[in-house]
Amino acid sequence: MIAVLRLGHRPFRDKRITTHVALVSRAFGADEIYIDTKDEGIERTLTSLSQRFGGSFKVQTGVNALNIVKNWSGVVVHLTMYGETLSKAVDAIKKEAPRDLLVIVGAEKVPPQYYELSDWNISVGTQPHSEVAALAVFLDRMTNGSWQEKQFNGEMTIIPSRQGKQVASNVGSNGER
Amino acid sequence: MIAVLRLGHRPFRDKRITTHVALVSRAFGADEIYIDTKDEGIERTLTSLSQRFGGSFKVQTGVNALNIVKNWSGVVVHLTMYGETLSKAVDAIKKEAPRDLLVIVGAEKVPPQYYELSDWNISVGTQPHSEVAALAVFLDRMTNGSWQEKQFNGEMTIIPSRQGKQVASNVGSNGER
Repeated sequence: MIAVLRLGHRPFRDKRITTHVALVSRAFGADEIYIDTKDEGIERTLTSLSQRFGGSFKVQTGVNALNIVKNWSGVVVHLTMYGETLSKAVDAIKKEAPRDLLVIVGAEKVPPQYYELSDWNISVGTQPHSEVAALAVFLDRMTNGSWQEKQFNGEMTIIPSRQGKQVASNVGSNGER
Repeated sequence: MIAVLRLGHRPFRDKRITTHVALVSRAFGADEIYIDTKDEGIERTLTSLSQRFGGSFKVQTGVNALNIVKNWSGVVVHLTMYGETLSKAVDAIKKEAPRDLLVIVGAEKVPPQYYELSDWNISVGTQPHSEVAALAVFLDRMTNGSWQEKQFNGEMTIIPSRQGKQVASNVGSNGER
């Protein structure tokens, strides 16, 4: 099981970036996201999206982030540009093969205790960029790209095509979606 | 040479997402970003960041996007969840080995002509997520991860570490930065 923990979310300022973090979590194979600040808007956005596109991704906002980290039974990873080299860390974690993985992504400055409580601080490149990108590339490497084969079985399925848009509607075609 | 073209940028609404798109472009090996709408704030942010962290990444805002696409001499790629499967497209483009690659990333709805003018519409997964993530994963695959080895030679260099923060300052250490 993979969960993502979003720290330092400010509903007005970070709404769109945190929404992207949540969408990436869902699309790249995480099962759940915890967001420290209560934000019913993001809960609604993700719930509605999962209804159309499928899957069983869970969103919890307004959580006690420190408790989640302290009580996590598996491996805790914190993505930061100051962390250990991505490939080195991913190789080591894969060897350990933890049952549960918690991935912390911060907005702005992350309090020092999260650096200390994490098993791994991991850097996706040592240049400043984006927690959205860092999360996507980390999950891509961690899952060996298997997120691309995940079946979401939603009402809508997109059919890849070099030109144009092809969408299959699965509603009403049979009892199962 | 790799350039990114950001379409549909609305300075107020998209400021942070487009900034993440620009930062990802720079960090993941692109040489330049064009943004269709004029935005001096993003220009300043990236210029100031490149001064500290190095590199020669260029930002141009307020460009004529359609002209750039129509006059591009290399391969034009448009990232969209409706596009061709990532691995299939990346393999084909690598075989072609274009000298110049233009990567289009839209905000919201992209006009149909960009789908038609692009050599490839490419989907980074068929689930809705984030143009920031799509760009990062596409550039990661396209460059075989070589963006991680790029030397930016800035005033500051981050030293990867599993715990804590290690930053080397390169100012004044010698004539060269």
